[in-house]
Amino acid sequence: MVPIVSIVGSSGSGKTTLLVKVISELVARGYRVATLKHDAHRFEIDKEGKDSWRHKQAGSCTVAISSKEKFAVIKDVSSEWPPERIIWSYLSDADIVITEGYKTSWFPKIEVVRKEHNPKPICAKDPSLIGYVSDVSLKTKKPIYKLNDFKGIATLIEKEVLKKHTLAELSIIVDGASVPLNGFSGSIIKEAVSGMVRTLKGCAGAKEIELRIKLK
Amino acid sequence: MVPIVSIVGSSGSGKTTLLVKVISELVARGYRVATLKHDAHRFEIDKEGKDSWRHKQAGSCTVAISSKEKFAVIKDVSSEWPPERIIWSYLSDADIVITEGYKTSWFPKIEVVRKEHNPKPICAKDPSLIGYVSDVSLKTKKPIYKLNDFKGIATLIEKEVLKKHTLAELSIIVDGASVPLNGFSGSIIKEAVSGMVRTLKGCAGAKEIELRIKLK
Repeated sequence: MVPIVSIVGSSGSGKTTLLVKVISELVARGYRVATLKHDAHRFEIDKEGKDSWRHKQAGSCTVAISSKEKFAVIKDVSSEWPPERIIWSYLSDADIVITEGYKTSWFPKIEVVRKEHNPKPICAKDPSLIGYVSDVSLKTKKPIYKLNDFKGIATLIEKEVLKKHTLAELSIIVDGASVPLNGFSGSIIKEAVSGMVRTLKGCAGAKEIELRIKLK
Repeated sequence: MVPIVSIVGSSGSGKTTLLVKVISELVARGYRVATLKHDAHRFEIDKEGKDSWRHKQAGSCTVAISSKEKFAVIKDVSSEWPPERIIWSYLSDADIVITEGYKTSWFPKIEVVRKEHNPKPICAKDPSLIGYVSDVSLKTKKPIYKLNDFKGIATLIEKEVLKKHTLAELSIIVDGASVPLNGFSGSIIKEAVSGMVRTLKGCAGAKEIELRIKLK
């Protein structure tokens, strides 16, 4: 899976403001950044009267629109998708995914702690916390960054997330859930599958293989 | 790949109006419908000032937002993605995908021909055309439906697209392109991969397997 870091903090603590600055800084450093925001409420993204909106109103479970510059997909779900599933399916071509929210996930996290909003951290005991962004003093061994120190925060993300990440060369999803692989079984499957696929016509130089199987 | 049908016709011929009615009819018949619209122009879907819009402005290549009810993804591309790639990656959990446009694709097509807009069909010689929707008489062996006969059109789609479709049990994408498989090589790969994956912990009853490999 692509490297992931999450910006967490109470509502109103300034997560989005920080996120926007960190995105700009990481983009300036040459990374392809994708973002995923967790919305606890209903959100509206499509515009009333547009074709895609009309498709959705007519009952499409998923509407997509594609042009030369971008495409967009809006999908109804019966229950919230785990962030890993959205990231796997939609965001894994980025160099890094920054999420907003998902404070109970296993993702490496940076918590925003603000005097006026939430002077007490919510992720103090979370082992995946890599640092704080705060205007209060905190009892912690984790690094604390000032609110406007997005260069420092970007460097923290580079050090703790991007450089520690080893891109899995093989990932397997079975019935919607990621399968943990040890080196041995992973190697066998990777070598066997890539060996078979490379014998197919035109696939000798395959660099990225995606494969889907439906079983009865 | 999921079954696909495309509604084509000149600009202003009434494709979207027809599409919306056909979606409703297919949904009423119990199908999960997804739609993909080809947009020749720039489209705007995100709302200025919203968090996802701010992420995009800051330089995210992909922004996503997720809630209990739905999620949305907007992705920048350097050149237009082939519709097959969007459908494979994002819409393949539907029973049928209806596209609007893509008149040069191999998808089965229904052309809207209107006296006032385009009395001469644009896909007359296209072997993948399965019927017309028109208010003019046309020299053709293909069935012609009236503009408001969306029940008839839904039945045509059921007969010519849904019932003729055999869901490939194995699909492989190599470096972004779909790989054609004959029965023999497809069977070997399918059996070998599912056999290996089913030996992994917790995967004995695997029904759907997705696998990705990156090779050096």
